[in-house]
Amino acid sequence: MGLNESDQLLLDAAYEQAKKSFDEGGIPIGAAIADASGAIVAAGHNMREQSGDTTAHGEISAMRNAGRRRDWHECTMATTLSPCVMCTGAALLHQIPRIIIGERETFQGAEDRLLEAGVELIHAHDQRCVDLMKRFIELHPEVWNEDIGIPPAE
Amino acid sequence: MGLNESDQLLLDAAYEQAKKSFDEGGIPIGAAIADASGAIVAAGHNMREQSGDTTAHGEISAMRNAGRRRDWHECTMATTLSPCVMCTGAALLHQIPRIIIGERETFQGAEDRLLEAGVELIHAHDQRCVDLMKRFIELHPEVWNEDIGIPPAE
Repeated sequence: MGLNESDQLLLDAAYEQAKKSFDEGGIPIGAAIADASGAIVAAGHNMREQSGDTTAHGEISAMRNAGRRRDWHECTMATTLSPCVMCTGAALLHQIPRIIIGERETFQGAEDRLLEAGVELIHAHDQRCVDLMKRFIELHPEVWNEDIGIPPAE
Repeated sequence: MGLNESDQLLLDAAYEQAKKSFDEGGIPIGAAIADASGAIVAAGHNMREQSGDTTAHGEISAMRNAGRRRDWHECTMATTLSPCVMCTGAALLHQIPRIIIGERETFQGAEDRLLEAGVELIHAHDQRCVDLMKRFIELHPEVWNEDIGIPPAE
């Protein structure tokens, strides 16, 4: 089952962010936000490697770049990867009602919390997203573990 | 029941951040993080009014300012206000095990999610924190509603 056209464009924008981050040596997770009309209003990617900001996951970066809006409750967010517990919380705080998830094969976030709050989740099972994450995790497993909050081995 | 000395110093640092934000015309919520030795390693405050970043709650700002650390699981965070669902998720992602909460009178966040994950919560019931929040909410109710994700009235 494919995405509709504007959802696909939004996920493509999220993937472009992920690819940009990968090309910069960063964690390849991106996100993009569209308003009720389908217009893309913001995008962003994980910034851990680029800026040292541990809160700058792809979804947080996209929300940050969206600035102050009063229509979050009408927006759709696309993210290349199943959102972690922080990004889940941020989506719930902003009351984003629809989230397109590129893939949930390399990481399963806190989707149950989104579902229980009534957020609509659309799974794209996008192989580009899977391949990019797998490539990064193979190259930099320690950075990936850091990003998902796994403490260092003693 | 009072806080121990280093917890009190940490909450004082969080309160100083909240006061600084208030004096700048911003939302008066601050946070500070201490390492296992009790040394304060970072602090920050809500930046919605100052930078337009809707993800920059006090706790997120403090974590951002802490940079890349590998000892989050040994840190304590103090925040002047009961943490919202986004900041709760950020604390869970970073695996912060102890949180000192200045007050939960003007807002009750997602403390249940912290408790169910085994995070130790220490309630200070600090009247300075309550008074500062009440003052801000009275002056700028619309900014406060925006900060906690309440959509505008139709």
